[in-house]
Amino acid sequence: MDLVFFNGQIMRMNEVNISFEDRGYQFGDGIYEVIRVYDGKPFTLKEHLDRLERSGREILLELKDMRKDIEESILTLIEKNNIRTGNVYIQITRGVAPRNHDFPDGDTKLQVIAYTNEVERPIQKQKTGITATLKEDIRWLRCDIKSLNLLGNVLAKQEAKMKGFQEAIQHRNGTVTEGSATNVFIVKNEQLFTHPLSNLILPGITRELIIKLSKQIGLPVIQEPFTVDQLLDADEIFISSTTNEVMPVIKVDDKIIGNGTPGKITKKLQDQYEKLVSEVIAKV
Amino acid sequence: MDLVFFNGQIMRMNEVNISFEDRGYQFGDGIYEVIRVYDGKPFTLKEHLDRLERSGREILLELKDMRKDIEESILTLIEKNNIRTGNVYIQITRGVAPRNHDFPDGDTKLQVIAYTNEVERPIQKQKTGITATLKEDIRWLRCDIKSLNLLGNVLAKQEAKMKGFQEAIQHRNGTVTEGSATNVFIVKNEQLFTHPLSNLILPGITRELIIKLSKQIGLPVIQEPFTVDQLLDADEIFISSTTNEVMPVIKVDDKIIGNGTPGKITKKLQDQYEKLVSEVIAKV
Repeated sequence: MDLVFFNGQIMRMNEVNISFEDRGYQFGDGIYEVIRVYDGKPFTLKEHLDRLERSGREILLELKDMRKDIEESILTLIEKNNIRTGNVYIQITRGVAPRNHDFPDGDTKLQVIAYTNEVERPIQKQKTGITATLKEDIRWLRCDIKSLNLLGNVLAKQEAKMKGFQEAIQHRNGTVTEGSATNVFIVKNEQLFTHPLSNLILPGITRELIIKLSKQIGLPVIQEPFTVDQLLDADEIFISSTTNEVMPVIKVDDKIIGNGTPGKITKKLQDQYEKLVSEVIAKV
Repeated sequence: MDLVFFNGQIMRMNEVNISFEDRGYQFGDGIYEVIRVYDGKPFTLKEHLDRLERSGREILLELKDMRKDIEESILTLIEKNNIRTGNVYIQITRGVAPRNHDFPDGDTKLQVIAYTNEVERPIQKQKTGITATLKEDIRWLRCDIKSLNLLGNVLAKQEAKMKGFQEAIQHRNGTVTEGSATNVFIVKNEQLFTHPLSNLILPGITRELIIKLSKQIGLPVIQEPFTVDQLLDADEIFISSTTNEVMPVIKVDDKIIGNGTPGKITKKLQDQYEKLVSEVIAKV
């Protein structure tokens, strides 16, 4: 039995009824998070809720006193749905109102939905690596907000898939920004490079973890924009996200990266990430 | 009794149930149109359906043989809901599927919703004109697609409202693009200027009508990008859209345009537009 959280209540999936006048449905006027669950425990939950609140603030959608309820409902869903390895998806929209671009009046109730999925970790892919294609980044100039306006991301991912690749690496005027729903890292001469935090990329929680892990193992991290040429000339490439963790990229379009297998620094970071996950699992 | 069209059937509003896994709700993965109704007759319906099909094609959402059904359902709704002066809203999303950025398999059914509203024409505002504020255009680079990713437009309109203005005029690096949901025209030295069709603006149906009407009255139309400075220095400014028709802008931030009342060419175009509407109304 799959339970979901909807507007303050735990209920069955088929009891949820979204209005066609929900601003999430007509404008994508809302925010979301995907939280990873390892061994029944939410991973970096605090960081995800911090980011959810921040995304809300940036589009003037204040969560106010909802955070505690949301946190509790996530824990309840994981437990009641008996999720061991999986995801929690949570989305909040600006509510139901007759369609007008400007916000409805202050009494309109935010619509909150959260649900879970049992999803295995992509361990096999992490061992072999994936392929990616380059794609012009055509998204809006507030990619730091985790909003429901994801059509640019959707089209990037779909284009990659149709061309036979597993991810799209986006670039703006030759500067690499992000994957379709991942951050991008390159290794060159034993140094790690990734786009700095700005309006052009999502402040990835896994990205932040990887930077921390790199520092722990003495790997220099340079948060500066790099070009498509630098990407193609990298010793190693990997992407990161909540669900991908540390995912090697072994080919970009027809360019083999390194020797076409996951690089040694990428693997070292995967090992470090694995330790983090084990620590979560070991915790009672 | 308000009837709506939902996935091939006419039904009551409260019978419609949108899934939280509708891709429109989670990604804004869909398209829409707003069609004006004058005296119970849809205005420029063919043009709206053409644009709906085009928007679909551009995001690889093919309407295939649905057009005729959609057209009939719009006519049925107008009649059964007895709409005299109003709007038809129609939205199509890529269907309901477990959340993944790339498209679900080909069997997934598009979700179609259409409904009507009785809405008066903004005659009074057209006589007095409205005020606008300048706003950096931060939207994606496919503004020619009428998609459900409207958060940039929403935030622009809301910012205008909060600053005490009625519309936001957006510009990209100093070049004027669009309003929050309108096209922008300026008059200078008895010539009409508007941004050319490109990926940066919506191909407005009212915009196209206005260009046609201008040619009929011998007004030269120059479809070239113009700057914020040119905007502020214009003799007249107006915006256009399906619901605004020809709407004068008499002030931009603290700059009074012309003498602070609707300009004479704007009024001439309003008269021409009025004739078009009268012709529709006169038709049996």
